[in-house]
Amino acid sequence: MTFKIKHTDGNARIGELKLRKATLETPFFMPIATKTGFKYMTTKQIEQTNTKCFISNAFLISLKPGDLLVHDFGEIHKYMNWHGGIFTDSGGFQILSEYFVNELTDEGVVFTDPYTKAKQMFTPEDSMKVQQRIGADVIMALDDVPHYGKDREYIQGTVKRTYEWAQRCINSHKDKSQKLFGIVQGGTFLDLRAESAKQIGSLPFDGFALGGLALGENDSEQFSSVKVTVDNLPRDKPLYFMGLGSPEHIIECVGLGVDIFDSIFPTENARHGTIFTRDGPIKITKNKYLNDFSSIDSEYFCDETKNISKSYLCHLFDVDEKVGLTIASLHNICFIQCMLDDCKKAIRENRFDSFKDEWLLRYGTTKREVKTKK
Amino acid sequence: MTFKIKHTDGNARIGELKLRKATLETPFFMPIATKTGFKYMTTKQIEQTNTKCFISNAFLISLKPGDLLVHDFGEIHKYMNWHGGIFTDSGGFQILSEYFVNELTDEGVVFTDPYTKAKQMFTPEDSMKVQQRIGADVIMALDDVPHYGKDREYIQGTVKRTYEWAQRCINSHKDKSQKLFGIVQGGTFLDLRAESAKQIGSLPFDGFALGGLALGENDSEQFSSVKVTVDNLPRDKPLYFMGLGSPEHIIECVGLGVDIFDSIFPTENARHGTIFTRDGPIKITKNKYLNDFSSIDSEYFCDETKNISKSYLCHLFDVDEKVGLTIASLHNICFIQCMLDDCKKAIRENRFDSFKDEWLLRYGTTKREVKTKK
Repeated sequence: MTFKIKHTDGNARIGELKLRKATLETPFFMPIATKTGFKYMTTKQIEQTNTKCFISNAFLISLKPGDLLVHDFGEIHKYMNWHGGIFTDSGGFQILSEYFVNELTDEGVVFTDPYTKAKQMFTPEDSMKVQQRIGADVIMALDDVPHYGKDREYIQGTVKRTYEWAQRCINSHKDKSQKLFGIVQGGTFLDLRAESAKQIGSLPFDGFALGGLALGENDSEQFSSVKVTVDNLPRDKPLYFMGLGSPEHIIECVGLGVDIFDSIFPTENARHGTIFTRDGPIKITKNKYLNDFSSIDSEYFCDETKNISKSYLCHLFDVDEKVGLTIASLHNICFIQCMLDDCKKAIRENRFDSFKDEWLLRYGTTKREVKTKK
Repeated sequence: MTFKIKHTDGNARIGELKLRKATLETPFFMPIATKTGFKYMTTKQIEQTNTKCFISNAFLISLKPGDLLVHDFGEIHKYMNWHGGIFTDSGGFQILSEYFVNELTDEGVVFTDPYTKAKQMFTPEDSMKVQQRIGADVIMALDDVPHYGKDREYIQGTVKRTYEWAQRCINSHKDKSQKLFGIVQGGTFLDLRAESAKQIGSLPFDGFALGGLALGENDSEQFSSVKVTVDNLPRDKPLYFMGLGSPEHIIECVGLGVDIFDSIFPTENARHGTIFTRDGPIKITKNKYLNDFSSIDSEYFCDETKNISKSYLCHLFDVDEKVGLTIASLHNICFIQCMLDDCKKAIRENRFDSFKDEWLLRYGTTKREVKTKK
């Protein structure tokens, strides 16, 4: 059994996910090493943020340095010198961006390789082949990801295609030691989400993911979409919310029953000077922090961010030392991981709801310097 | 006694330098945190390169975040969260660059503050005051640093002014727990170097430095200048070569009797893709390294750079992931520290000369991809 539920508290739960290279406790958050590199952070530093698993992008890796190269090297864990878990995303979201896509058909996606300028077809079967070569612990089915704001008819089409592609992915998934997750689409149309959840949930995936969310919908749309998905999926498999990264959304979704998260949100914000603190996000680039000698966070920290003062970090941003981006990024990742540790403690003690309310009250009570909700 | 010589082998030696916050074994190399930040590296990462001491720039710190701020915070060790030794340079070299300097007089330097645009006078006394506030273990006298290529008459003037300023620095040096080093000038005019060494060496400094070198002179000029300085300085004090950072120059100068080094050379080269290896420097951005699965260096490495392959580092540069600059910088610093460890071992075993010859032969025998000699 890949996934074991160890404790539940309402919909929130603690699970154990056994992968071929790591055993992970859920809920967990995955930072992103898009093309096998974390932005401004080494793999070693990521280890120190209490991160046990990250996600990389198989499609982008297939372009550079190449899935064959990574395979020949000894697969991605060895290539990146990482001893925990690794997911790869199929790259459905990226390949369907304006930058790459030429044509989307039932067969697959025709995209332009930005390096060779060649037009190429990328199918669900290609995605499986590429991800198997790269060798992550968990790979994702190729899905048809709609942008936010598409109409019902369009979304209906993506649900249908996502289901067809999911079956093709299952059929070309050979090495069962590598786990395969299916992705639920449906935009914020709750009936379409339910339909997609039922379809994808009927297939023998090792886990499921919420796709096409955290793309601009409001909180109520997002949480309703999660709920309807949870209600229509088998609950004995792990559930992964793709692309969710703001602390307050993660904590809400843990309460709704989500087990796994990933997002560029913590690090992208960090690079723009937004630092998560227990009392809400702050803009560390504000001049007043030069004279604030307190720690960036005295409760949520890792070895790399312990004893770093607001003054020092503000100064590094001020004089444009890029190591400021490193420290801010490590801190925001570490913050999410520490928050999830607190979540797990609360779940174990059957007090998740009150914990969540208190946590959010404190995070939101001070006059917010920065709005992090999308 | 601040400095104890533990072992000598010819002019090369191992010493123990007792500072107020650290006891350091010489010879050692100091990476540079110009404005209290290392370029692309955290203080924590620098620790892992086997670095025990670094240097920062007091003049630049006085502009931002301000020497008073650093003082109020609890001085520079606390501000940067560093538990080893710290030197500050007076900033003589920087303040006399075209970017800052307005007028150079016997009294001091009139410079333009780039942030406030105000013209300000900076005297040897100011330099001492600023460095005492910042609170490094070792501070440097303010000197008059000539650019390379100046004529004899000009250099003669800088020797005279450097001596006068040195005396003023000694006179305004109050806290004797903070060690003060004097700087020898003289360009590559050997008689002027000798004169400057005698003058500076006659003053009660805790150590001495070679200034105004590694600025464009050839090897023979550089080594002769070092020799004549060594011959004319008291040898019971530590000798610091300011701004020397190429592996082959450092190893030669250890042989000539230099104890301390600092330079941006290893990290600046790293950021341009030049990686030191035992078999000479390589240009990691070359396409061929994508397919080279060997370690960037299998002999000289630290925790952060161990098991990093040439392929992975080449790829990070290729896709412009800045963490490649981090890894390359850490490696080049670590390389110098490992080389100095080997130097110390050889000195202890009284075989420094043959060690140095073998080391240089191997470093230089392969067809050089990159010329690192200036």
